[in-house]
Amino acid sequence: MQHVGPLALRPQHETDEGMIALAQKVFAAETKDEDTRDEVSLFDVADDCPILNQELSQHLHQDDNIEKRRKMISRAREVLLDDKPAYLEVPDFQRVAIVGDFAIGVTMDDFELACKGLYRALSIREKYMRLGLQRFPHTVSQYLCDIEGRPWKVEDQVHPVFTSPPKQGEDPFETKSLPENLNYVARMRDGVVRVYKDAAAADKNEPIDLPAPDLDTFVDDMNFLIALIAQGPTKTYTHRRLKFLMSKFNVHEMLNEMEELKELKNNPHRDFYNTRKVDTHIHAAACMNQKHLLRFIKKSYRVDADRVVHKLQGKEVTMKQLFETLKMHPYDLTVDSLDVHAGRQTFQRFDKFNAKYNPVGASELRDLYLKTENHIDGEYFATIIKEVAGDLEDARYQYAEPRLSIYGCNANEWTKLSSWFNKHRVFSPNLKWMIQVPRIYDVFRARSFVPHYGKMLENIFLPVIEATINPHANPELSVFLKHVTAFDSVDDESKHSGHMFSSKSPKPEEWDIAKNPSYTYYIYYMYANIAYINQLRKQRGMNTFQFRPHCGEAGAVTHLLACFMTADNISHGLNLKKSPVLQYLYFLSQLPIAMSPLSNNSLFLEYNKNPLPEFLKKGLMISLSTDDPMQFHYTKEPLMEEYAIAAQVFKLSTCDMCEIARNSVLQSGLSVEEKTHFLGPNFLQEGPEGNDIRKTNVAQIRMAYRFETLTYELNLIKECLKGD
Amino acid sequence: MQHVGPLALRPQHETDEGMIALAQKVFAAETKDEDTRDEVSLFDVADDCPILNQELSQHLHQDDNIEKRRKMISRAREVLLDDKPAYLEVPDFQRVAIVGDFAIGVTMDDFELACKGLYRALSIREKYMRLGLQRFPHTVSQYLCDIEGRPWKVEDQVHPVFTSPPKQGEDPFETKSLPENLNYVARMRDGVVRVYKDAAAADKNEPIDLPAPDLDTFVDDMNFLIALIAQGPTKTYTHRRLKFLMSKFNVHEMLNEMEELKELKNNPHRDFYNTRKVDTHIHAAACMNQKHLLRFIKKSYRVDADRVVHKLQGKEVTMKQLFETLKMHPYDLTVDSLDVHAGRQTFQRFDKFNAKYNPVGASELRDLYLKTENHIDGEYFATIIKEVAGDLEDARYQYAEPRLSIYGCNANEWTKLSSWFNKHRVFSPNLKWMIQVPRIYDVFRARSFVPHYGKMLENIFLPVIEATINPHANPELSVFLKHVTAFDSVDDESKHSGHMFSSKSPKPEEWDIAKNPSYTYYIYYMYANIAYINQLRKQRGMNTFQFRPHCGEAGAVTHLLACFMTADNISHGLNLKKSPVLQYLYFLSQLPIAMSPLSNNSLFLEYNKNPLPEFLKKGLMISLSTDDPMQFHYTKEPLMEEYAIAAQVFKLSTCDMCEIARNSVLQSGLSVEEKTHFLGPNFLQEGPEGNDIRKTNVAQIRMAYRFETLTYELNLIKECLKGD
Repeated sequence: MQHVGPLALRPQHETDEGMIALAQKVFAAETKDEDTRDEVSLFDVADDCPILNQELSQHLHQDDNIEKRRKMISRAREVLLDDKPAYLEVPDFQRVAIVGDFAIGVTMDDFELACKGLYRALSIREKYMRLGLQRFPHTVSQYLCDIEGRPWKVEDQVHPVFTSPPKQGEDPFETKSLPENLNYVARMRDGVVRVYKDAAAADKNEPIDLPAPDLDTFVDDMNFLIALIAQGPTKTYTHRRLKFLMSKFNVHEMLNEMEELKELKNNPHRDFYNTRKVDTHIHAAACMNQKHLLRFIKKSYRVDADRVVHKLQGKEVTMKQLFETLKMHPYDLTVDSLDVHAGRQTFQRFDKFNAKYNPVGASELRDLYLKTENHIDGEYFATIIKEVAGDLEDARYQYAEPRLSIYGCNANEWTKLSSWFNKHRVFSPNLKWMIQVPRIYDVFRARSFVPHYGKMLENIFLPVIEATINPHANPELSVFLKHVTAFDSVDDESKHSGHMFSSKSPKPEEWDIAKNPSYTYYIYYMYANIAYINQLRKQRGMNTFQFRPHCGEAGAVTHLLACFMTADNISHGLNLKKSPVLQYLYFLSQLPIAMSPLSNNSLFLEYNKNPLPEFLKKGLMISLSTDDPMQFHYTKEPLMEEYAIAAQVFKLSTCDMCEIARNSVLQSGLSVEEKTHFLGPNFLQEGPEGNDIRKTNVAQIRMAYRFETLTYELNLIKECLKGD
Repeated sequence: MQHVGPLALRPQHETDEGMIALAQKVFAAETKDEDTRDEVSLFDVADDCPILNQELSQHLHQDDNIEKRRKMISRAREVLLDDKPAYLEVPDFQRVAIVGDFAIGVTMDDFELACKGLYRALSIREKYMRLGLQRFPHTVSQYLCDIEGRPWKVEDQVHPVFTSPPKQGEDPFETKSLPENLNYVARMRDGVVRVYKDAAAADKNEPIDLPAPDLDTFVDDMNFLIALIAQGPTKTYTHRRLKFLMSKFNVHEMLNEMEELKELKNNPHRDFYNTRKVDTHIHAAACMNQKHLLRFIKKSYRVDADRVVHKLQGKEVTMKQLFETLKMHPYDLTVDSLDVHAGRQTFQRFDKFNAKYNPVGASELRDLYLKTENHIDGEYFATIIKEVAGDLEDARYQYAEPRLSIYGCNANEWTKLSSWFNKHRVFSPNLKWMIQVPRIYDVFRARSFVPHYGKMLENIFLPVIEATINPHANPELSVFLKHVTAFDSVDDESKHSGHMFSSKSPKPEEWDIAKNPSYTYYIYYMYANIAYINQLRKQRGMNTFQFRPHCGEAGAVTHLLACFMTADNISHGLNLKKSPVLQYLYFLSQLPIAMSPLSNNSLFLEYNKNPLPEFLKKGLMISLSTDDPMQFHYTKEPLMEEYAIAAQVFKLSTCDMCEIARNSVLQSGLSVEEKTHFLGPNFLQEGPEGNDIRKTNVAQIRMAYRFETLTYELNLIKECLKGD
């Protein structure tokens, strides 16, 4: 790590050799365990777990430091019971207070061990969020400072930077305001972009002074976290806290549901329908529903049958000829023959699911209608997306963040994609753009498209840092990047490579074997590049990028650990069910999770087994998203369908739904101006003060409950560690 | 019974005194048991049921007529295995054949007992359907004839008559074509309308010659059925058959799912979106969604604020004044303050649910916007319904059958309702009308609105028979009745009266006590009146009415028994879960069930516990309906929302969904012309020959599976009884 700002002041945690060994053991065990899902996993706690029983018996045998316990309790009682801020605008409600020994059932030693681990884990996430210019709740930062005895300063807060919406009459594609050329030189070094004053400095590897993550520290931090999530006392402690959070919410709901509803009823002119909601996870290539795509294909044929639209074995063909070679006529096409909808056949079969992207099973039609690069320069795809955007603009309160692919297969991809974006002027005030990078190095390597993994990273990130250094060299790309808010990492998580990421792992330039790198390896290098690029962009007054990978949809629990360290927010997160430590950490750090239960229902997890309602009750920061309307949804309003089904099956209240909608805006790439407009001017505040019920329709009672619940849990850690 | 046509030829079943006693015992036990739902009920079979075990042990001990069994098996084998018709248009598929002892696990005596009972039950339903001019599958009729050794004649088939849609340029409100006055006299006699040649004949009680049900026979039949559904061997037998039907479908699905899908994919121009679907159960007063109602209220205020719209304590008030007395301004209204949506608070609370019909909790607004009778003659309600109809017309493939109330509180209701219908010209090709009658005699009696229950029946049915005798006397009513297709009986089924319907029950004119009659009592008298009216209407070439009550949403299992005898089709049917005998009978007679899982989810049964997918697999004839979009749905297309959620949560295939849609058209009140257009010209045929895949998008393989599965079960009964 080169620069860490105020973090340098923090006590450096000693690197523990034993911890690395443990981490390796844990990792090996987990990879092996993959097929024996029924056993209680390394990270999970069953309700009749032997660990728990053992600790309970210890507790019963009073094998504990009673004096220490008594002291801590009497010291902390005041804080835990009286720490209820007097908000200006929260109506009275019934609070759930726990009186007495708040750490009952856990020995003092275990309690301390768990709290130390959790504290360190939060510090680690804070560090990487800061480095990557991503978000971390300042409430949590304040507690960390408090524990360390340092003052917290408002200036220490870090926020991503998003491009403001164009003002009246302003052209979102204009290039004049792009910053000047810095004349720096960019190079890839060990898989991460670096910027140098000039070629000479580059040759000497003397990069300019920018904060950047350091691989060895990252691996140390990761090993610490792997050990933590498998640590018995911490597992038990977090498991108990999560159970408590669940029960506490149930009590809160029972006591205050009607009061929350009253707030909403008295809130004029705002209801669930006209609160803003963002589809936080949606792939551009499947952002229309199946009926829309069908209609578009038929319409295009009526208009363009004689237009040359495709090259078939080197020969130009018209749309009519293309359909003739496919032996079909668009007039006869139906949703069934289109066959892009996921059905029962796709459950637990991600491979079959991917094939569903081909209309009528024909990759030619995918090329023609759902690609940015084809014989008609992606015109149809651009038109479809603009139609989707038009529907959102008409619906007024819905926004989406479609994800477009950059593969890293060759160096021109960015130029082509941004040329498509500019040529067809694919802009809508209701859309924010994201870039998704598929983890398919092994496919490219097998076809010799790339010599090693480092080349992929170079193809993905070098054009971005070069456009950051000299925006005018590729103005189309620079304009497009202004509207890109985040990067995503995508693929079937249930595949896994078996490689364990460590400081001894081959560097990306050395990774020339056929095998795909591991999830964590991919994640680290994407994060490291984005973080570095963000630092330069922020310095230049340009917008920055969030890292918002797919994570925890399937596969190993360690994916969720890698993203706890690196991601601003994640998509899916189902596997948090399997690790109470990680689930509790995601709660404490309010790490946003874009969940898509309808997608899960077709692929990995049946609807009514989805952990969404449980996560919501515990207070994790979840939002609802569609993932792929083309494949999963039936109606004309996929995001509303997603909310409606969740409301029905999980029996969500209006307040629940509006809270989810508010979460979706918060975690999105909408600009400060837009968030201010949609959530109120204080949206950066946490707790009820950050909520404007007139705009969000979330009850202040709910906000207060959430905030007080979070600070109660943070207080427990603080009070425990303060005694040290 | 006065006339039974060919039924008179059938052997008359002896009335069994013991049976009545048993029926009373069963009824008493069931009413008492209401609160102990966990126990295995009288009608149910638990998987580890003692009856089953006992029979199994009998079977193991060979306590059976082995010779008889062997004979029957060898005789029936051929029929059961080879009875596969060679259809013209069904692709090859894999059939599930059971080879060997098809009655294994049941003793011959029990098998015979069960088959006799089921045969007689089907004969009973056939008789009452015929009398009421309602539907009964001719396939089943053919088997019944076969068992009795009589030939089946196509002329014996009975069909309800529905008014054809107006032809080009024809006015649906025209009165010229109404039939002439018959100059008959109509009277209520023992709760049922009767028609007499003249007043003298009426005074002598010599009605004209029309078939009509007979109370004593009905009670005998009912007692037989009550005994049957509690009979051990029949319970066991039907329980086993239903389990078999379930497993058989699962095997069919596994083997043929892809083949069915192939049929659909190869079916040009038709998919789930453009197959016709009917919302078979929807209340007019809640047929718009909450957002629609909200928008309408706001719009009406913008236009009509100064219009006199209401009478408040005798004083006329403008809309502005009305809202002022309610202390609200429509501008501030939201979906939350409107508060018409069912939430968690309504679960198991039908009382709270009913209050949700009042916008903002104000009955004044319900009067103004959701009633046909008010100061503005129901203008707003008519406009809202026409807007809903407009949406359906735009969506093109969706139809609805809204239900309007007739209370029986006074004799003018029909005139007022039909005047509303004609005045506002509430007609749409996408709507068919139904009349719902709430079972609230007790409420009217308590307020002295009616002296006895007979008066209610008179208020409901006398105007209808009078309009049938002399249509020109009340042309508006006669026009309205042309567009009415069915009657419904509605209320909270979980309330119950404790009265057991018998030949000793007070006649309706004698029912002047405060207590409400029982469900069965209500059902019988509605059925008897509708059946009689239908006979006269059919004779006159007028349209007839189906009886389509709410049934089995909650309450006693006997409700489902009453409707098995009387209803063309029912709404809900959830409680069929509790009686294998009735469930099997509903299957055998293909008695249609309009299910509304979203409504159930808010009131009586959680979504994923709904029996819909189980019923569908077993082959019961189910459709999907919304019940009350205002209270349960979120999106602009409530019926699509209903289908989409069912598809997602129950993992329905496209073929399943199209089968449900086809069922909905079949069981609806759409005319022969419309059904021919939507389902194909042979829709009255049963099995694959009745299906036109080009219109319905239901695979012929599925149709063949359903038909062969039904005939297999009917063959079992036939083969068993033939040996006698």
